[in-house]
Amino acid sequence: MRHLGAEIAAIRPAEVTLRLPFRPELTQQMGYFHAGATTALADSAGGYAALTLFPQGDDVLTTEFKLNLLNPAQGDWLEAIGRVVKAGRTLTVCQLDVHAVHGSARTHVATGLQTLICVRGRAPVTPPGR
Amino acid sequence: MRHLGAEIAAIRPAEVTLRLPFRPELTQQMGYFHAGATTALADSAGGYAALTLFPQGDDVLTTEFKLNLLNPAQGDWLEAIGRVVKAGRTLTVCQLDVHAVHGSARTHVATGLQTLICVRGRAPVTPPGR
Amino acid sequence: MRHLGAEIAAIRPAEVTLRLPFRPELTQQMGYFHAGATTALADSAGGYAALTLFPQGDDVLTTEFKLNLLNPAQGDWLEAIGRVVKAGRTLTVCQLDVHAVHGSARTHVATGLQTLICVRGRAPVTPPGR
Amino acid sequence: MRHLGAEIAAIRPAEVTLRLPFRPELTQQMGYFHAGATTALADSAGGYAALTLFPQGDDVLTTEFKLNLLNPAQGDWLEAIGRVVKAGRTLTVCQLDVHAVHGSARTHVATGLQTLICVRGRAPVTPPGR
Repeated sequence: MRHLGAEIAAIRPAEVTLRLPFRPELTQQMGYFHAGATTALADSAGGYAALTLFPQGDDVLTTEFKLNLLNPAQGDWLEAIGRVVKAGRTLTVCQLDVHAVHGSARTHVATGLQTLICVRGRAPVTPPGR
Repeated sequence: MRHLGAEIAAIRPAEVTLRLPFRPELTQQMGYFHAGATTALADSAGGYAALTLFPQGDDVLTTEFKLNLLNPAQGDWLEAIGRVVKAGRTLTVCQLDVHAVHGSARTHVATGLQTLICVRGRAPVTPPGR
Repeated sequence: MRHLGAEIAAIRPAEVTLRLPFRPELTQQMGYFHAGATTALADSAGGYAALTLFPQGDDVLTTEFKLNLLNPAQGDWLEAIGRVVKAGRTLTVCQLDVHAVHGSARTHVATGLQTLICVRGRAPVTPPGR
Repeated sequence: MRHLGAEIAAIRPAEVTLRLPFRPELTQQMGYFHAGATTALADSAGGYAALTLFPQGDDVLTTEFKLNLLNPAQGDWLEAIGRVVKAGRTLTVCQLDVHAVHGSARTHVATGLQTLICVRGRAPVTPPGR
């Protein structure tokens, strides 16, 4: 997150929004945000969304995710929303959506699904929003 | 790729290997490579593998991918292999595998699948290995 | 669809709902609907949703999909909704959701994503809802 | 499996091959095996492959899977191979590959990935190959 330059835009139980301002070093050959930046942001948004539902002290690991890249990721910033679809005892499933914001226009850049596993008592630092 | 600090380790038709040396800013909260770095590397390996089969001047865009994170991505470097499973006229499908190398030990960190679409006559620069 | 015993419950542009009544031969070893039945229903719902947006005479093929199975698929029937998230010239992306209905209770059984490719002028029969 | 008409072609630790002979009611509108049949076969092959590594009495549930449909599923029968890529304490990841066999020709029909969760002490019947 720090390496990417991302920040938390909104946080509530089961849903977290992250924002990533445009930076030239995050782009691929055509001048769009690289799929890696889009993915890292989406993955983090889902991870934080899952964390909002976990007991304090637990941590989260992504076990798998899938992303469909819908439109070029071009704009002033990227916004990724992670929403918990199913919060199980062991596994949590999140829906991931990334939009590119350019002035007043919003483009749906990516949609995805992510499975996370709860790691009991391993959180090294206070999770965000607590 | 440049932002991550990755390099091409091997390239042949339909298969490309990329290498990413460990750097502290690529790690997540537990000291492993962040899933975003693993993913960016895997995605790029598949993209380059597809490019090796395309006519010069064509470019490639990832339309979707899925990654299973199998083991903690810890080690001296990450190695991502992209292999073309199906080269279609419009769509190319790649298998992605990432290993972490720590001394002489190799750990299977991630396996995935990726769909790419060929973009005719849009390559802005000479693709790698040509 | 006929083999499964599924029927169209609702159809409108970009969104189709299919229904599959419980039948013992569709269950797996624990008495739930088999993942294969859930998947076939979800896949068909997305395919029909894409077809609602295509010119008459075109057909659709699934190129890939991913499904997260969230809860046991138990109930009187399954209901699958396919919604078009992105309708591109070549590729269409659908969100897939399957619920199990048991009396007045609805359980979210599966959520998924699907990529479809348009096949020009190949539809052998009139698509549903036309 | 019985509903589909599938049978076990080969079984060894971490790898199971299933076979599904062509039947008209398993086809979609173009005369190919329906994606639902391909998927059910692939899903079952992965499930059985995982079961070969589990302690007797445990059962397996698919938590998610993703399939890329590579070529039309046309032929005398389908053959699905499930291979365990990672056998974890809680989660098992399998690679899935489906080929269509037509006389002496083999076509790669689908490739996929699947995550399974071990369910302790819930197997209602003797798993295959024991």
